[in-house]
Amino acid sequence: MATITNHVNDTICAIATPAGSGGIAVIRVSGSNAIQLCDTIFAARNSNKTLTTQPANTTLYGHIYDNNEIIDEVVCTTFRAPHSFTGQDTIEIACHGSQYIQQRIITLLLSAGCRLAEPGEYTRRAFASGRIDLSQAEAVADLIAATSAAAHRLAINQMRGQFSQRLAQLRLQLLEFVSLIELELDFSEEDVQFADRTRLNNLTQEIKQEIQRLTQSFAVGNAIKNGIPVAIVGETNAGKSTLLNRLVHDERALVSNIHGTTRDVIEDTITLGGTLFRFIDTAGIRDTNDTIESMGIERTFNKLQQCEIAIWLIDSTTPTQQIEELSQRIIPQSLDKQLIIAFNKADLIDPTQQHTIQTLAQQLAARHPHATPLYLSAKNDTEIDTLEHKLIETAHIPTTEGSDIIVTNARHYNALQQALEAINRVADGLANNIPTDFVAQDIRETMHHLGEITGEISTDDILGSIFSRFCIGK
Amino acid sequence: MATITNHVNDTICAIATPAGSGGIAVIRVSGSNAIQLCDTIFAARNSNKTLTTQPANTTLYGHIYDNNEIIDEVVCTTFRAPHSFTGQDTIEIACHGSQYIQQRIITLLLSAGCRLAEPGEYTRRAFASGRIDLSQAEAVADLIAATSAAAHRLAINQMRGQFSQRLAQLRLQLLEFVSLIELELDFSEEDVQFADRTRLNNLTQEIKQEIQRLTQSFAVGNAIKNGIPVAIVGETNAGKSTLLNRLVHDERALVSNIHGTTRDVIEDTITLGGTLFRFIDTAGIRDTNDTIESMGIERTFNKLQQCEIAIWLIDSTTPTQQIEELSQRIIPQSLDKQLIIAFNKADLIDPTQQHTIQTLAQQLAARHPHATPLYLSAKNDTEIDTLEHKLIETAHIPTTEGSDIIVTNARHYNALQQALEAINRVADGLANNIPTDFVAQDIRETMHHLGEITGEISTDDILGSIFSRFCIGK
Repeated sequence: MATITNHVNDTICAIATPAGSGGIAVIRVSGSNAIQLCDTIFAARNSNKTLTTQPANTTLYGHIYDNNEIIDEVVCTTFRAPHSFTGQDTIEIACHGSQYIQQRIITLLLSAGCRLAEPGEYTRRAFASGRIDLSQAEAVADLIAATSAAAHRLAINQMRGQFSQRLAQLRLQLLEFVSLIELELDFSEEDVQFADRTRLNNLTQEIKQEIQRLTQSFAVGNAIKNGIPVAIVGETNAGKSTLLNRLVHDERALVSNIHGTTRDVIEDTITLGGTLFRFIDTAGIRDTNDTIESMGIERTFNKLQQCEIAIWLIDSTTPTQQIEELSQRIIPQSLDKQLIIAFNKADLIDPTQQHTIQTLAQQLAARHPHATPLYLSAKNDTEIDTLEHKLIETAHIPTTEGSDIIVTNARHYNALQQALEAINRVADGLANNIPTDFVAQDIRETMHHLGEITGEISTDDILGSIFSRFCIGK
Repeated sequence: MATITNHVNDTICAIATPAGSGGIAVIRVSGSNAIQLCDTIFAARNSNKTLTTQPANTTLYGHIYDNNEIIDEVVCTTFRAPHSFTGQDTIEIACHGSQYIQQRIITLLLSAGCRLAEPGEYTRRAFASGRIDLSQAEAVADLIAATSAAAHRLAINQMRGQFSQRLAQLRLQLLEFVSLIELELDFSEEDVQFADRTRLNNLTQEIKQEIQRLTQSFAVGNAIKNGIPVAIVGETNAGKSTLLNRLVHDERALVSNIHGTTRDVIEDTITLGGTLFRFIDTAGIRDTNDTIESMGIERTFNKLQQCEIAIWLIDSTTPTQQIEELSQRIIPQSLDKQLIIAFNKADLIDPTQQHTIQTLAQQLAARHPHATPLYLSAKNDTEIDTLEHKLIETAHIPTTEGSDIIVTNARHYNALQQALEAINRVADGLANNIPTDFVAQDIRETMHHLGEITGEISTDDILGSIFSRFCIGK
């Protein structure tokens, strides 16, 4: 493991609970001097106990003082190395959840010699102390950002080390492999073969398939973590915004609004039936007669390429001719996507026209391999549940029960791709009787890339980039 | 104390930390079955320990389970009655600060038999268990809402029971008093006087003065807690919004944005030099020639009555005649207030006109007993600090150091006023030789009103009204 030498023992502090005002807030202080330092601003109530003399994993009730002024009544919990989140001596101060008090206590801790923690610094210390590996550290941020059952389950499994264990197994197999080859190298003048070529070939294929499986799982993992991309396309007044609001409204509690943990850009996401959907913003298509060739609309059609599911929202009162014209653009460009053709404002159509609309809908759907027609009213909340069920049904993410490991992290995906390239070179090398030392080099490179995932191979730059995307206090 | 019988022992749960996403969140479970109930969803890691067998004030590391699915890694702290915030058995679950996880754990607790806590229900239980009195309970909410050093200090002192102790002393004096009088009543046929009338008179005066002092302190306490009311009046384009933004910007961190703890309406507040200022919204006064008599402007002038400090903001480029006209309305109506006459856009005046403006400013200031002229530019941030210093200087809240007790709560103020009326009747009764049993009745009434403050006298309605204004989780 790359040694991390910068300031891992100095004492850091930060508010660990969500920003704002509430019943209580928790301030976490971690480092070699954390306990003694907190004792300088804390006094137990009705006893001479100090945090320094407290047993590990116990709480002490008392006051935080700024000289003689009482700042708050608090409960301090003492954790001792290595049995804490960071693996270091740690005090957690549970104070009243006033922003003023939180700021006062942080200011006091800074005066007493603490440093304000950088984003993700607690988790980075947990990694540096060897308590968790890098993919587990990243899972902590994913866990906090998770808004769906599936994303939560993946993050928990990754945090508990399932992915790390699988990678460790792969590295062990590779190590065994390379040891055999390198033994041959030592005796190269005698031209012996310690490593049975058939066995080496089989092992290479096994490892390759496993890395391939992990790499391929990223498509699923990314959809689970960031949501299945859904584009709603349609003319300007088709009711796209109303539909989106309607979908979002029913799941208000589960709408993702979380900034700054692991994602840079947040789009509208909705959890339906435990699956996260991410709605891609598309500009409404204006009056088809004069602007269908314009740049803005071109961009909207391009967005169709980024989605897995397209909802084509149609104002049912639009002239048939106009719908037909639009279909000539939308249907070809969404051919390899799931397409939901949703006739909105269904309540506004004359009963005598319903047959015409239904016939049109069937005709349009017949021109696309994966199209479903639907009739709804976003405004009146009619058949929105049918649309939701259709989305859930269409999404069909494979279950992630059991030990199936799903890659969710772009960094891991990139490392796996590089490992895959290296193991492919190993397979080619064996097939073409390339000199053993070149093969050994490629095996070591495969191991290197797998080690990047768990942080056995890492640099300060990589670590800095990973942890800077965490929130402060984590 | 009025007995509170409704559900004080059933087990309640709520998220105690601020709403949202962060490193960690704390869920508090309190009630007679809290510990056993949490054991049904929690398992310690690497041991057979349970929360039920844990010693008080210790933490236990483990997992929250939904059947066999791991929901989160958590640290549970066990508190045992009566040594907890509520005075009841309590478990605090520190989980990862994901909104999804928080919701899952709350849902699990509800399934296991918890009830979701009502707003302020934890603090209400602390009161019901006798751990704190009512004025201390109210101080908890004040403490969380406090955004200035002075408001924080008052809330801390009240929470620590300083006010309660003073009231207890008063009640003790009154009790001694009434005992003496009632002893006379028992021997009324013999016409003896156990209570020395001079001593009774002196005692009445002492108590009366003390209650009066407390009542009068409310003006100060209210200003500290809710901010010193400042009205900015002036014509529409005088730069009022720019000035307010300028003032707020410099103290962004301390701007109060807290909803739902103890205040119903939040106005723009700013802490300057440790003092909270509350800016009263006033409509800009439009072109004086045609609308000075309109209703809207009348309302702006009425707002002058609610402030302690008025800032009359003048666009320095306005014709002198127009300023003079406005002065005839503003100066008379702000006569008993502190008035700051602020000439804005000072940078836009021609140097040759500066003398005219200064002469006008001096003339206007001379017509008001507490007026100060100032020249500033809100847009260019020029002399804003002078205005701030002037506000701080003008506010002159008496210091609240030491044991001076300041009343900050409107409910306490009302009770004190009623106590004051009753003690006045006692004084009158003694002076006019009213029959002793009437005097005794008035003393008991004084005691009753003082007891309302600490909750020794209370009803479920009053308690409901007080605690419903707390946030959930407190």
